[in-house]
Amino acid sequence: MSTPGITRLSLNQRTVRRWGVREAIEGCLRHGIDAIGLWREPVADLGLTVSAALIKDAALRVSSVCRGGFFAQPGWLDDNRAAIDEAATLGAPCLVLVVGGLPDGDRDLIATRAHMSDAIAALAPYAADAGVRLALEPMHPMYCADRGVLCTLGQALDVAAPHPPDSVAVMLDTFHLWWDPDVRAQIARAGRERRVAGFQVGDFLRELPADVLLGRAMMGDGVIDFGPLCGAVTAAGYTGDVEVEIFNADIWAADPNDVLAVMKERYASLIAPVLHPADRPPAR
Amino acid sequence: MSTPGITRLSLNQRTVRRWGVREAIEGCLRHGIDAIGLWREPVADLGLTVSAALIKDAALRVSSVCRGGFFAQPGWLDDNRAAIDEAATLGAPCLVLVVGGLPDGDRDLIATRAHMSDAIAALAPYAADAGVRLALEPMHPMYCADRGVLCTLGQALDVAAPHPPDSVAVMLDTFHLWWDPDVRAQIARAGRERRVAGFQVGDFLRELPADVLLGRAMMGDGVIDFGPLCGAVTAAGYTGDVEVEIFNADIWAADPNDVLAVMKERYASLIAPVLHPADRPPAR
Repeated sequence: MSTPGITRLSLNQRTVRRWGVREAIEGCLRHGIDAIGLWREPVADLGLTVSAALIKDAALRVSSVCRGGFFAQPGWLDDNRAAIDEAATLGAPCLVLVVGGLPDGDRDLIATRAHMSDAIAALAPYAADAGVRLALEPMHPMYCADRGVLCTLGQALDVAAPHPPDSVAVMLDTFHLWWDPDVRAQIARAGRERRVAGFQVGDFLRELPADVLLGRAMMGDGVIDFGPLCGAVTAAGYTGDVEVEIFNADIWAADPNDVLAVMKERYASLIAPVLHPADRPPAR
Repeated sequence: MSTPGITRLSLNQRTVRRWGVREAIEGCLRHGIDAIGLWREPVADLGLTVSAALIKDAALRVSSVCRGGFFAQPGWLDDNRAAIDEAATLGAPCLVLVVGGLPDGDRDLIATRAHMSDAIAALAPYAADAGVRLALEPMHPMYCADRGVLCTLGQALDVAAPHPPDSVAVMLDTFHLWWDPDVRAQIARAGRERRVAGFQVGDFLRELPADVLLGRAMMGDGVIDFGPLCGAVTAAGYTGDVEVEIFNADIWAADPNDVLAVMKERYASLIAPVLHPADRPPAR
């Protein structure tokens, strides 16, 4: 089924936001994409059991489930346990955690980060029992206040350090990490510590839009030089799926089939060639 | 002349953008502010010699001159030498360097950063001869593409390391640095390495405006907890001026006298109390 040059490509379904789980699965099959990153909300819309059955029938790999975290919200513990259960049911290797920003009206970044570490410690055994890795996602520092107080890969690895690498690891995303002067050293560290749970690619626009959440772009449309980052990820020993996850108003407004066509072409021309050794399907 | 509680406060003139140098000096005198951070463009508008004479007559301390840098632009070497000369004429202890982003159409962040280091090495002896410190300003990573590839305090200290601390140092700005999980350790390092050239305070808005360049706010209007940052700067041995530098459309639209009144009150209530030991004039 897989298409040469894109064997490790995974569609993060947020990139084609207009599609539900069923349409996204059908899109992957139609376009020869072998893997998908799922989001909990559309999975819930279709139903968890139905979604899991469709994925199994389609023989797609699930590269991740987005997302748990948001540890400042009431009910975070139960919600994250539910997310872990859902990821297990969907056959996902990992649950992406967006840890959340400062609580409303709160400026205590140090305490918020301490609570994040405590929350991860509380969840790690539950995730281990479920066979789901928690994938801590360091986010661009422009989201520190409202979305993610986990800002660098080094910080994420420090937070993960007390836990077994099979239960707490990191999600690498070029959009969030490209600016970090220490990023390649920290990717190498993530490899040494066996903490790379997944890899997402997306570009960073030179001119950010009014809503900075949507400042992501298709690979090639922004400022990121993918060679050094992809080379570091491969050198770190990562051979798994490579998700394309893009929040962008223009991409969301476009025909999802057109988006997939462009995504495949950009992946094949800009990402696969710099993922040394040559693009090949994950061994799992 | 100085007003109790704000003896170390310096007005960065960009905060009152509608004022020229003359009006800013008069505003400082009227409001009992003893120090000012100058910008090259308004200084040139009034004339360098006249500006320097007015500053001397007013007996204001000049805390910094903004700005050199932008090393991707043609003519950067001559322009930065001119900026150093201007800072010396104005009696400024340091010239703030905004190093610039990626050149247009260029994605090579590694090469751009290498050029930045080369440019600083080229300027350092000239600055030393002029008696002006180069103050490398690490900027928030959301500006990495278009404004400053120098993104963290640790990176700035690494870039400064080959040079004498009297000629190459760093400008600390809460707006740019607050999110960094390593910031307090790096501020301590900056103190040990005698590299703190200056300190600027400004707040970070939880909801960024459409132009992220203007996402700064008066202290107290954003998410920054100034206590841990100011405490670290004081523990690092810094006893110099504390500039308020805010790029904000609402503040720029307001009456500058009102802005100064609010600035003084916020400085006295939020900054001076956490600058231990107690607020006192710089010894120079």
